[in-house]
Amino acid sequence: MEAGLKNAAKPSAAVERTIAGIRGVDERYQRKAQKHLDSLTKPLGSLGQLEAVAAQYVAWREEEVPKIAGKAVYVFAGDHGITDEGVSAYPREVTPQMVLNFCNGGAAINVLARHTNSDIVVVDVGVDFDFHRVEGLRHCKVRRGTRNFAREAAMTEAELNAALQVGMDLAGEAAAQGRTLIALGEMGIGNTSAATAITAALTGKPVSELTGKGTGLDAARCARKAYIIDKALRLHFGDFVVSRPDPLEVLRCVGGFEIAAITGAVLGAAAKRIAVVIDGFICSAGAAVACALAPNARFGIIAGHLSQEPGHRALLELMGVKPVLQLDMRLGEGTGAVLTFPLIESAVRIYNEMATFDSAGVSEATEG
Amino acid sequence: MEAGLKNAAKPSAAVERTIAGIRGVDERYQRKAQKHLDSLTKPLGSLGQLEAVAAQYVAWREEEVPKIAGKAVYVFAGDHGITDEGVSAYPREVTPQMVLNFCNGGAAINVLARHTNSDIVVVDVGVDFDFHRVEGLRHCKVRRGTRNFAREAAMTEAELNAALQVGMDLAGEAAAQGRTLIALGEMGIGNTSAATAITAALTGKPVSELTGKGTGLDAARCARKAYIIDKALRLHFGDFVVSRPDPLEVLRCVGGFEIAAITGAVLGAAAKRIAVVIDGFICSAGAAVACALAPNARFGIIAGHLSQEPGHRALLELMGVKPVLQLDMRLGEGTGAVLTFPLIESAVRIYNEMATFDSAGVSEATEG
Repeated sequence: MEAGLKNAAKPSAAVERTIAGIRGVDERYQRKAQKHLDSLTKPLGSLGQLEAVAAQYVAWREEEVPKIAGKAVYVFAGDHGITDEGVSAYPREVTPQMVLNFCNGGAAINVLARHTNSDIVVVDVGVDFDFHRVEGLRHCKVRRGTRNFAREAAMTEAELNAALQVGMDLAGEAAAQGRTLIALGEMGIGNTSAATAITAALTGKPVSELTGKGTGLDAARCARKAYIIDKALRLHFGDFVVSRPDPLEVLRCVGGFEIAAITGAVLGAAAKRIAVVIDGFICSAGAAVACALAPNARFGIIAGHLSQEPGHRALLELMGVKPVLQLDMRLGEGTGAVLTFPLIESAVRIYNEMATFDSAGVSEATEG
Repeated sequence: MEAGLKNAAKPSAAVERTIAGIRGVDERYQRKAQKHLDSLTKPLGSLGQLEAVAAQYVAWREEEVPKIAGKAVYVFAGDHGITDEGVSAYPREVTPQMVLNFCNGGAAINVLARHTNSDIVVVDVGVDFDFHRVEGLRHCKVRRGTRNFAREAAMTEAELNAALQVGMDLAGEAAAQGRTLIALGEMGIGNTSAATAITAALTGKPVSELTGKGTGLDAARCARKAYIIDKALRLHFGDFVVSRPDPLEVLRCVGGFEIAAITGAVLGAAAKRIAVVIDGFICSAGAAVACALAPNARFGIIAGHLSQEPGHRALLELMGVKPVLQLDMRLGEGTGAVLTFPLIESAVRIYNEMATFDSAGVSEATEG
């Protein structure tokens, strides 16, 4: 029993119920969507990935006339004990400072939320700061930062399940509010280190290939960051390529509270058939754990963009999702996810509003 | 004299005046824009290409607080004599049918214009159809289709200048209406053949590498299309890699009326400091001729997307512009250009609305 407990984190009953409620997609809707797209006045497949997004949304939502309602971005914030090891270019106090910036409307994600008519929900899952007087913030703190995963597990099993629950609860609330499309984002100094560790553990790829400069490390500090992460993975899992650690145990040992909340939000949204746009590297690490637990969740995930962080591509490939944007961004906050809202809306409106060859009296293609 | 006339098309006095009026960018505005972007609450450069677009727009418009006004897409339509050679998957009558679809609001570009709150201006520059009763269409027909460039020059010098003038006039009108950002698009069965010929002549690359399936050719018809284009280029210019033909003469011999109008629109917009978003392969062929005539025009061009047509990348590299989107699209109409309007607006709003490190009280990065 002791060995079993050490090798896998036990999900709460609520997490297990949520996972069990995530269905796949009905092929009839996929076929119907493609048939409709092919009847519109454009050469077959000429809208490329826009058509794929429209078809995915239709199949996920199972609506004849797909609608998008209540767009919102959820920004989860947490601190990381691993910052004690000097893995970030920014000091730890930037996490609460940026949370306050979100609440005051001054960050990039605020501008993008305003521009896309989206609500923004800022969530403290584990920031090392007392926000109790701050309005406009969701107070869901599990703990003031994770433990330093270079020395010990980042969180306990109870803390892990509490953080997952934060995301699941917000997804449930989103469903109750009638939201059909949400974006996820994060803020947490040190969290590219956690995401890199998760990525290495889930993919079995070498840490050195996955480690990037985060918010702006130089080459020497980047190499040191990779060394610390690799050593930490060996501390928790031995040779992680061989031991293939349990995804929830990975999240518990080397993850973050905001990352676990994202895992919970992806699971909760998938169970409620909400489409989820994921942001960059850190957000994708949370989503990849969700997909490892519930492979059907993938059908509801739209990858907003491909980040400059080297580990991001590995996570998107692991999940089997293709990024919409490639703009060399590496900011986080949900920015790369919310930027795609107008493109997803365009895809859905094209599906609903374009004339067909028949209705417009346009001749179709001749053979080949 | 005769030889001189054969080797270069003579621009009209109006075209020459427009070219002479296109200024470059002031480095002081570029530096000021980058300095402001670096003061915003985000890691340096972390918004990637969004920052580049914002800086470009500021430098081009020379405004302290950049504004976007009067967004519109201009869709230029024309027919092509080269369709006699069987180079397209669709019959020639699709050009007027789609123009009517644009006027009735049923095409993809109509949906995207509506979604982005943009005006749409549909322009008949050379469609082989009598539209005289159609409302909501700009009647600027130069001729009912170009001549078959596999046998003779597509247009005369007078027709070339008339088509250029159509684009320049509309750009002038856009400036008078206060527009600061416009997209260009096109419709014309057979026009990937014209664009491919232009691309080969401007870049010196082999036609076979540049020829794509257009609206949907199979491999055999695609190879035949490349053969016809290569033969036509040799008819007009001999060994075009060696002869390096004059860009306007290329446009006259193997171009299209809608492509020439796009060249004129890019030149006219550049002279009036309007930022221009170009669409895919055909639109870029027109823009590349404009940049060959007036290299400074490049600073006002934003490349909307990278098309699936193989020649498109060569044109973007020739102009030195980087596409914003890569969505495997190949529709034309301006769709890939208008899709980027929300991203350009986002970039400009981020520039104007984000808090600075100072104003938000956020700590800056430590060394490296």
